[in-house]
Amino acid sequence: MATKETTLISYPMAGGEGEHSYSQNSNFQRGIVEAAKVFVNLAIEDMLEFSSISSRTCNNTFVIADFGCSTGSNTLIATQNIIKAVKQKHQSQCPNHPPLEFQLFFNDHVNNDFNTLFRNLPPSREFFAAGVPGSFYNRLFPKASLHLGHSSSALHWLSKVPDEVMDVSSPAWNKDSIYCSGVSKEVTKAYVAQFQNDMERFLNARAQEVVGGGLLLLTVAGQTERSIPSQTYGSLMYDILGSCLAEMVQEGLITQDKLEAFNIPTYNPTIKEMEALLQRNAYFSVERIESSPAADMVPLMGSSLIQPLSKLMRAAFGELIIEHFGDNIVDSVFERYPKKLSEILHDLKDKQKNLNIFVVLKRNSSKA
Amino acid sequence: MATKETTLISYPMAGGEGEHSYSQNSNFQRGIVEAAKVFVNLAIEDMLEFSSISSRTCNNTFVIADFGCSTGSNTLIATQNIIKAVKQKHQSQCPNHPPLEFQLFFNDHVNNDFNTLFRNLPPSREFFAAGVPGSFYNRLFPKASLHLGHSSSALHWLSKVPDEVMDVSSPAWNKDSIYCSGVSKEVTKAYVAQFQNDMERFLNARAQEVVGGGLLLLTVAGQTERSIPSQTYGSLMYDILGSCLAEMVQEGLITQDKLEAFNIPTYNPTIKEMEALLQRNAYFSVERIESSPAADMVPLMGSSLIQPLSKLMRAAFGELIIEHFGDNIVDSVFERYPKKLSEILHDLKDKQKNLNIFVVLKRNSSKA
Repeated sequence: MATKETTLISYPMAGGEGEHSYSQNSNFQRGIVEAAKVFVNLAIEDMLEFSSISSRTCNNTFVIADFGCSTGSNTLIATQNIIKAVKQKHQSQCPNHPPLEFQLFFNDHVNNDFNTLFRNLPPSREFFAAGVPGSFYNRLFPKASLHLGHSSSALHWLSKVPDEVMDVSSPAWNKDSIYCSGVSKEVTKAYVAQFQNDMERFLNARAQEVVGGGLLLLTVAGQTERSIPSQTYGSLMYDILGSCLAEMVQEGLITQDKLEAFNIPTYNPTIKEMEALLQRNAYFSVERIESSPAADMVPLMGSSLIQPLSKLMRAAFGELIIEHFGDNIVDSVFERYPKKLSEILHDLKDKQKNLNIFVVLKRNSSKA
Repeated sequence: MATKETTLISYPMAGGEGEHSYSQNSNFQRGIVEAAKVFVNLAIEDMLEFSSISSRTCNNTFVIADFGCSTGSNTLIATQNIIKAVKQKHQSQCPNHPPLEFQLFFNDHVNNDFNTLFRNLPPSREFFAAGVPGSFYNRLFPKASLHLGHSSSALHWLSKVPDEVMDVSSPAWNKDSIYCSGVSKEVTKAYVAQFQNDMERFLNARAQEVVGGGLLLLTVAGQTERSIPSQTYGSLMYDILGSCLAEMVQEGLITQDKLEAFNIPTYNPTIKEMEALLQRNAYFSVERIESSPAADMVPLMGSSLIQPLSKLMRAAFGELIIEHFGDNIVDSVFERYPKKLSEILHDLKDKQKNLNIFVVLKRNSSKA
């Protein structure tokens, strides 16, 4: 049961509660949490069966884990909504039992800012809270100790940049882009393989931890279809980041080699890819899989989107940039970002909106 | 089950890993952990009965919580020693069962530096780790969810300064001292009552959380006997701190009123007080209670004690001083401290050594 982190890199969201923090710049992810509420409530109402998950549960404790919680209030909104739905289901299904006690585990990388997360917990709360440091691609909990696992906007973060993408001698060497832009077939293949491998690791680890009959509720940042080049909002955001960095190479602030070696370790699956991957897994049955496009903020907000979007990019990718380039260029990158974003904001309307994929998995009781 | 923290103050040990951190200045507490090892090992060997604590445990998970873990390596040394002892006992008592999985909960105040604690966890470890923020005088875990609770050098921290001690109109107003020095009978009475009240809260909360047959292993910083004035190492350390602050009143750096309102919320019980208190509790049986004087470092280390002792005082009480006086005097206090300590170091040899009280409690199976 030894857990090992050494082979995994980790990219925490920016900590604290200051101007550049994830805590203050995660409204877009909050929108996703809000959008998932109805889906989550229905999943719990329809698919959670207290009689089948464990005799213990009807009596006392219901254990929930949020994988990739970060520091902010989104994890609280999501998990408190889950608690409310589980309570309602329990009251209707086990009317003669005493109320459940809830234990909530908040998981993220070891260098996530758990101090800020803990300070954000409501002082008076109806759950027992715990933080769990470590990559969710590894085991994090004892066998059969969770009743419900949740993850929102986290599983598109890979455990690492695919090896081939950083290998100068490989056809998948990602010389001309900083992410999986879809332009190179080989690069895409490497990213897809890494995503599949990571999702399998995630599901295999959770299969050990979730009790038979327990649920996994996942919201994954996906894409409508794979296109060449990628046509999503997200890809445009990454393109702008790449263009800021390229400009800094021109100005001699960073080297061309350093830029070529920089890759963002995220992959947005299509719903077909997710389905295929989930169907292959022997431990969980796919109870439901749905998708909906992310809300289109451009017509609503226009140029007032520029600052919050730029800040979100810094909160999410600032640490990754510091890790790769050192901490002396990050201010400059994100001074350029809003300028470049404002130049091409009108292009966003022709892009595919990102896709949120909602998945409900139930742990089989039969498989060990 | 709602937990509330608002009425409790909290005094974290200094965070981080820098010069003034608790993590770098807790060698004395480590000595206590080392001294307790034999006691802990014997307690587990003699008093842990897998057959009586729960049928689940023989099969899979053993859950341990450390109450008042702080940030450093002491909690890891203590808990890894516990894991080793539990493993050995399990192998001898349940030879045909698969090995246990361990889940370790690290508890301290919400403003403890959990980030540093998590970074200090060994990357490859034989337990699943979680941090639990909140006062251990409240409920922190679901009912019957712990098999073993541990606390070392933490329970002498009260939940608050006793009210009377801060009340100018009370005979227990602690005008002339910054702690329970033993000089005023009324002050002592108020501190003793607070300690009793807090220990009862601790035991009542743990009674809900620890399974029948589960153990509490406590090391409490006590005193040999109550004397007037207090004659321990610890009281001399506090007297020096008081004298630094009094000097700063003389220099006009802090006001007399502010000093009079400052009180350290700790109490060191005698073994008789602990025994009486524990015997009154209906939920736990007292399996063993022993004490041993803290190691006498003065003859061993002489004046080389001055810097580490002064740093320990800053790591442990710096945050409390900042909380009360603001953050602009703390450097000055601890510039004075080693000078004053060096002047009276020779007096230490006439003082009682502090007493470590080791307690083994077992949760009754009969009481709800």
